[in-house]
Amino acid sequence: MSTTIDMPGSSKAAKAGKPVLVTTPSRPGGWKKGVAIMDFILRLGAIAAALGAAATMGLSDQTLPFFTQFFQFEASYDSFTTFQFFVITMALVAGYLVLSLPLSIVAVVRPHAAGPRLFLIILDTVFLTLATASGASAASIVYLAHNGNQDTNWIAICNQFGDFCAQTSGAVVSSLVAVLVFVLLIVMSALVLGKKH
Amino acid sequence: MSTTIDMPGSSKAAKAGKPVLVTTPSRPGGWKKGVAIMDFILRLGAIAAALGAAATMGLSDQTLPFFTQFFQFEASYDSFTTFQFFVITMALVAGYLVLSLPLSIVAVVRPHAAGPRLFLIILDTVFLTLATASGASAASIVYLAHNGNQDTNWIAICNQFGDFCAQTSGAVVSSLVAVLVFVLLIVMSALVLGKKH
Repeated sequence: MSTTIDMPGSSKAAKAGKPVLVTTPSRPGGWKKGVAIMDFILRLGAIAAALGAAATMGLSDQTLPFFTQFFQFEASYDSFTTFQFFVITMALVAGYLVLSLPLSIVAVVRPHAAGPRLFLIILDTVFLTLATASGASAASIVYLAHNGNQDTNWIAICNQFGDFCAQTSGAVVSSLVAVLVFVLLIVMSALVLGKKH
Repeated sequence: MSTTIDMPGSSKAAKAGKPVLVTTPSRPGGWKKGVAIMDFILRLGAIAAALGAAATMGLSDQTLPFFTQFFQFEASYDSFTTFQFFVITMALVAGYLVLSLPLSIVAVVRPHAAGPRLFLIILDTVFLTLATASGASAASIVYLAHNGNQDTNWIAICNQFGDFCAQTSGAVVSSLVAVLVFVLLIVMSALVLGKKH
């Protein structure tokens, strides 16, 4: 969270105190700095969403207060391989986003440099794919847990495991927020790369 | 398929016959035309992959040659909501890719114009997300069909429905090929947008 406080400070320093840092010749590209600051803020939001998704899913666990001879009524995220994949992927995405923050700050300080922007857009695309894959596969399992499937005789488990289902659904929603932010980040980077001024 | 034949012709025409079309001032950006041609060819491949995925999934159907009082042993793609979503999304992706071909040709003819490239990279990102979501969610269902889940007592159905499982697995693999091509397309577009020459 300390980076949140650093951000307006460093941008202000670049704007007022040390304009020497901005070495690009064309002046009328101020909107690029705005987009870069927006990029930084969106990354902070995406970190929160990805971490929240990983934590909610990783801590999802419910044991029912009764048991029979045949079943031990417990559900946790490692009952499903997909949910394990989800936790690992979301942690990876959050880690990448934290590591991308310095590069995003470089883009704020030098809004006209194409290098960091290019690096970010390529890695963002890769991690967008990763986040979408884990979010969507977890969503399809959550859907099955809610609705079951008659043709294959897979029963809905959400009647019993209400809390577990609520937690995993929340994690999926949080991951889809991260996906949306990634799409926004890529579109913004593409606009900055594409426009000359 | 007639567009495949048009492609080298139109690029040759732009290279040899009508160099007037290339109105950009900087000459040493010939690699951008190469990337644009590669972009076009990759799009053709992605159309094949997406159409193949949609068709394979849409035609997946297996009825077992016996039945009991309780079950009618039939499996088809509309047994699963996720697979229905998969067919619709893959058809949409294939449709978008076909519609994007003219714009890709424009990028071949004018490799230095940022407009079409920008338009393509933004729409590619959106449809990458769509393709990844449908491919990953179908993959998680296919995994369940192969392995089942002990904790929730969901049985693996692939022992009975071997052909159905093979078809749906093939469709998922084909969709992941389309996803890979999309990632390549976006990275290539970003490189073209980012580099000046």
